[in-house]
Amino acid sequence: MEFFFNPQGIAVVGATPNPSKGGFAILKNCITGYRGNIYPVNPRYSEIEGLSCYPSVSAIPEHVDLAIVFVPAKLVPAAIKDCAAKGVPGVMIESGGFAETGQEGVSLQQSIKDISEHTGIRLWGPNCMGLVDAVSGHVFSFMDPSALQRGLLLPGTISLIVQSGLLSAGFLIDIMTHRITGISKVCSVGNKMDVNECDLLPYLIHDTNTRVIGLYLESFADGRRFLDMCRGSAKPIVLLHGGRSTKGAEAAMSHTASMAGNHIIISGALAQAGVTEARDLHQMMDLCRSLDAVSRPVKGSGRIAVLTFSGGAGIVSSDFMEERGLSVAELSQATKDDIGQLFPPWMPVRNPVDLWPSIEKHVGTGIDVFSKALAAVLADPNVDAVFVHTYAGNIRIGLDLADLAAQAQRSGKPVFIWLLGRRDEAFRFKEQALSFGIPVFHEISRAVECLAAVCHQQPSYAVNSFPDKDAIPVFFDELDEMQKKYVGPLDEYISKRVLRRHGIPTVAEELVDDILQCEETAVRLGFPIVMKGLQQGKVHKTELGLVRLGVNNIEDVRQSYAVLMEKMNGQGKIVMYRQVKGKIELILGLVRDPQFGPCVMLGLGGIMAEILYDAVFAPAPLTGEDALRLISRMRGQKILDGFRGEPFVNREELSRILVAVGNMGLLYPRIQEIDVNPLIIGENGVVAVDATIILK
Amino acid sequence: MEFFFNPQGIAVVGATPNPSKGGFAILKNCITGYRGNIYPVNPRYSEIEGLSCYPSVSAIPEHVDLAIVFVPAKLVPAAIKDCAAKGVPGVMIESGGFAETGQEGVSLQQSIKDISEHTGIRLWGPNCMGLVDAVSGHVFSFMDPSALQRGLLLPGTISLIVQSGLLSAGFLIDIMTHRITGISKVCSVGNKMDVNECDLLPYLIHDTNTRVIGLYLESFADGRRFLDMCRGSAKPIVLLHGGRSTKGAEAAMSHTASMAGNHIIISGALAQAGVTEARDLHQMMDLCRSLDAVSRPVKGSGRIAVLTFSGGAGIVSSDFMEERGLSVAELSQATKDDIGQLFPPWMPVRNPVDLWPSIEKHVGTGIDVFSKALAAVLADPNVDAVFVHTYAGNIRIGLDLADLAAQAQRSGKPVFIWLLGRRDEAFRFKEQALSFGIPVFHEISRAVECLAAVCHQQPSYAVNSFPDKDAIPVFFDELDEMQKKYVGPLDEYISKRVLRRHGIPTVAEELVDDILQCEETAVRLGFPIVMKGLQQGKVHKTELGLVRLGVNNIEDVRQSYAVLMEKMNGQGKIVMYRQVKGKIELILGLVRDPQFGPCVMLGLGGIMAEILYDAVFAPAPLTGEDALRLISRMRGQKILDGFRGEPFVNREELSRILVAVGNMGLLYPRIQEIDVNPLIIGENGVVAVDATIILK
Repeated sequence: MEFFFNPQGIAVVGATPNPSKGGFAILKNCITGYRGNIYPVNPRYSEIEGLSCYPSVSAIPEHVDLAIVFVPAKLVPAAIKDCAAKGVPGVMIESGGFAETGQEGVSLQQSIKDISEHTGIRLWGPNCMGLVDAVSGHVFSFMDPSALQRGLLLPGTISLIVQSGLLSAGFLIDIMTHRITGISKVCSVGNKMDVNECDLLPYLIHDTNTRVIGLYLESFADGRRFLDMCRGSAKPIVLLHGGRSTKGAEAAMSHTASMAGNHIIISGALAQAGVTEARDLHQMMDLCRSLDAVSRPVKGSGRIAVLTFSGGAGIVSSDFMEERGLSVAELSQATKDDIGQLFPPWMPVRNPVDLWPSIEKHVGTGIDVFSKALAAVLADPNVDAVFVHTYAGNIRIGLDLADLAAQAQRSGKPVFIWLLGRRDEAFRFKEQALSFGIPVFHEISRAVECLAAVCHQQPSYAVNSFPDKDAIPVFFDELDEMQKKYVGPLDEYISKRVLRRHGIPTVAEELVDDILQCEETAVRLGFPIVMKGLQQGKVHKTELGLVRLGVNNIEDVRQSYAVLMEKMNGQGKIVMYRQVKGKIELILGLVRDPQFGPCVMLGLGGIMAEILYDAVFAPAPLTGEDALRLISRMRGQKILDGFRGEPFVNREELSRILVAVGNMGLLYPRIQEIDVNPLIIGENGVVAVDATIILK
Repeated sequence: MEFFFNPQGIAVVGATPNPSKGGFAILKNCITGYRGNIYPVNPRYSEIEGLSCYPSVSAIPEHVDLAIVFVPAKLVPAAIKDCAAKGVPGVMIESGGFAETGQEGVSLQQSIKDISEHTGIRLWGPNCMGLVDAVSGHVFSFMDPSALQRGLLLPGTISLIVQSGLLSAGFLIDIMTHRITGISKVCSVGNKMDVNECDLLPYLIHDTNTRVIGLYLESFADGRRFLDMCRGSAKPIVLLHGGRSTKGAEAAMSHTASMAGNHIIISGALAQAGVTEARDLHQMMDLCRSLDAVSRPVKGSGRIAVLTFSGGAGIVSSDFMEERGLSVAELSQATKDDIGQLFPPWMPVRNPVDLWPSIEKHVGTGIDVFSKALAAVLADPNVDAVFVHTYAGNIRIGLDLADLAAQAQRSGKPVFIWLLGRRDEAFRFKEQALSFGIPVFHEISRAVECLAAVCHQQPSYAVNSFPDKDAIPVFFDELDEMQKKYVGPLDEYISKRVLRRHGIPTVAEELVDDILQCEETAVRLGFPIVMKGLQQGKVHKTELGLVRLGVNNIEDVRQSYAVLMEKMNGQGKIVMYRQVKGKIELILGLVRDPQFGPCVMLGLGGIMAEILYDAVFAPAPLTGEDALRLISRMRGQKILDGFRGEPFVNREELSRILVAVGNMGLLYPRIQEIDVNPLIIGENGVVAVDATIILK
């Protein structure tokens, strides 16, 4: 990828002297920011902006690493061929008019993809804005040249990979001129025909000028590879998935398989890979800059001291902190004593610490109340991070940012600022804070959200590898044989047998052939008993009247047997098991997602849980730790811990089951779906009561 | 209240020539903005700022309508007495050191409250920042005088009532200098010892300079009155409740009564009264200014057309719109044809409408793409509101705000803007948009949130009145008698009998005295049967083993009878009813909230629903319409409509039940709590299966 970022020689195909055209802007930006040789290419000119212009790339006498192409779509294939002939390793196609426009564009895009596959030339785009590098000044993009010329680009250490031109052009100018953050590289990848996030992410992970990586993606080129890269990254990654609403959870709710490709799965995959998910554009940048300021895991459990000049703002902060899983730190007595010396005598010290009366008390004394209070809370072992409220343009408050930054640095604890103030004073404050690396926010909710993201950061996860068949102590022959024999849904009995073989506990059920065996089995199992009629390929047993719950005595057994056999017209078998005690039902499953492959699903069961939707997903394979994290992501997870006197769940056991289900999905590509519903939490652990495996 | 807002003569008690003191700031602000007579009061000076200074209020020779008091807390009682002696109708006590500081301050506050009650003098505060009126220039506050002198106050039509000084001082300067919005009046009410939101809200509702009212409250002085005022207000009301986290739903979950006073109840009460709830300070102002721009209910169902210059921003907008209950409008063919004429031929017209290629196509032609596209979508009957994305400082986009405002005005449809841009250009754009009354936002999520608040606005609700005993066709004698006889929890049988009398359907249960009657009843009711042991004062029947479900035959009946009688040691009765079919369970109840009185509660039942918490509240009395709205506020409400083949609920019937429960709470002050759990959705309507009424 180096020839894209730091090329030796650039050809600008479609360069023009017309300043209202993109071909001019690209050339102008190269001239302004790039220090190597630049070759305009356009058969209609011999010189543009004082540079010799060539009729084609192959006519350029020197070596060219990168060609930036901005000509009408239909002329692009010839331009690429010309670049390939010249031996140019990389091309950025910034023209639009390809797959995004309809069938004709799809064909055109395929034709240039063919050239790339044939020649090995790497293609970036099409339909993109190329690259903006605010550190090196390389702007290989038709973004407004005045931005670069006027020095509006603010160098920083956040790099972006974006599937939207906006985020590499106007949006950048917005966040930079508002002093929200500086930027390192922004890669606008457009249609991602060849170069995509899986090429660029490793480059940025190894880039010394990048500390945090943000992505705006509308699709994943290779979901599994991407997740592995994220898991392995020591740098924080923030991702905004555009289009999360198109397939909402609601439409997909009735069936696990239909959830494939929707945002819940993507969201689960990102969470499992340690990626911070963003929802809006500026919010993504706020998360990035917060993780840029505090890119290491924060010690402690998110206990926050709030230093404020307004009781109301302190209360609102506490409200958001509780919502975001942070807590209002219990200040130690030493801290209270320290701060108490600043306070008027009538005022008790509480967290949030309202400094206003102390500020009033010390006006004109030269005592810096904020600095002293900050020192006290930073020294407190019960405080993991500090949230400071301040006001720009009020001399009484007069926060000393240099002192604050130095204290934060020494303590190793994050200090975030909520800032109010007159517009110009606030701007200067933000500018200064940015240079000190202290995150400043204009809204309390956003500040707390970002503080939570920083405090809840995890160390990076080891990449988990595909399970080794030999390492899994199960019997394959049986399922191999079944895979040959069946297609579509396996019946309940077979499905559970397969699951049992793979380590998933199921009810101890028995298949009976006649009424005598049935009665004998019932007595042996003990009442109450469940009896079900099994017919191959029929999964909706309840709707067909093939389920008899609470069979309580031999009379019931006989009657149920007769009813079931009649409903099946004698064409089927009967399965029996002792009814499982336990009110809490989980659902557990496996779906194949087109982007992430087999994904394990866990959720609360029962009709109420279905209405209030609580299911979480993680792509297989899972390590035991992954599985525990999946469990802990369930909103209603406390039901697992013995809620209302019900049995509690051994999370280690449940995690082993989740790992096993994921492995089945990887080992048997013909398993399309596994649906365990319900998995009951019983006295002796969880047990799968009903299950279906669907083969494709 | 007029003497507070437009006083004839002001005394400033505690005025001082020391510019670092609040007593100086108050005087200076009065001098700058108030046109009537001002009388500094301070025995140590004869003149301050060129005005005659008096030793006491009673020494002032002229009439005084308002005294602003800013002296140490312990001197306040004497100052109030002096004002009362002079016949001053209103006093703003801006000093701190009262109830907010501890027991001593509480006593001091009580002593001045006594003076008020004795003399009729109205007291505003203490511990407040008084009043800021940006329209009249009346700043009766110790806010920094330079703000008023430098003309930083931006007049507007939003008024605030706030329990935090910040929101009437620094915060105002922040939002005004950032051109977020102008302001009419801000009333900082502090400890609300006498004058509170119930005094000020009616004043602002009738104030011709106020179009929208925002409140930041940490407590409610009189919840019920306040709600009635809100219901009756034709002006939009936005409220931020500070301290919503202190009693979270979780802690209160185990018991309905313990939910009293928590944020869920407050939130429910506000929603039922048509108040828009805010969560953060700037977000409150964003909601206020949006409702200020569009203060009438919006026609249609929230179908939004998005005009953007970025496909990605359009997608992110759609995501938020779906989450907020808005929809991406299906453009009519005529609109598509109109817009299609602007588009390049290869580009299909979709909503969000990405105008970028059209903008590029028309550069230099003088055709205003935004204006034409806006006209097309505003004329579309399938479009209820328009969300425009624009960029300040890009000549190509060059949105004509005057044209946009005129078009919006003519169409009567809301037009909201998401704005990016260079800092200075964006500021000028915001300034201009503010003058046109077009709401502009810097973040997509906030813009969509506010657009949703505007589109989901309801017309104001009629104030519902206390139910008339005579109008309710029930028997009171029985409950009156019970109220005499019992205290604490009434048993299940009596509780259900009372509920039945008030129109709540319950199981047809029977009380039996002996085994013979029991058997006979069982046969008559039909199996399966539920049998329960009743003991007075014992409500936890399940835990005591006093519930037998699924009693299926006479043998079971005999055995169950024996077991129950044994468990009760013969001291109790047995109640029997036929088991109700139906998987869906609701819970229904009544709690007494210290702020809002009796509140009706409705929620999904069962253990899963309890874990995923879904209960909603509304203060009684409820109209039928209120009750329907309460039902529709349940997150899992679709379970009522026949989910998964279960019976559906007649919402009218359920609403009658909710109204009746609320009325019981109002009619019988000794009913502390009603707990119907479960209310089962059965084939023949909902039915209360178990219930407890608790008398205090």
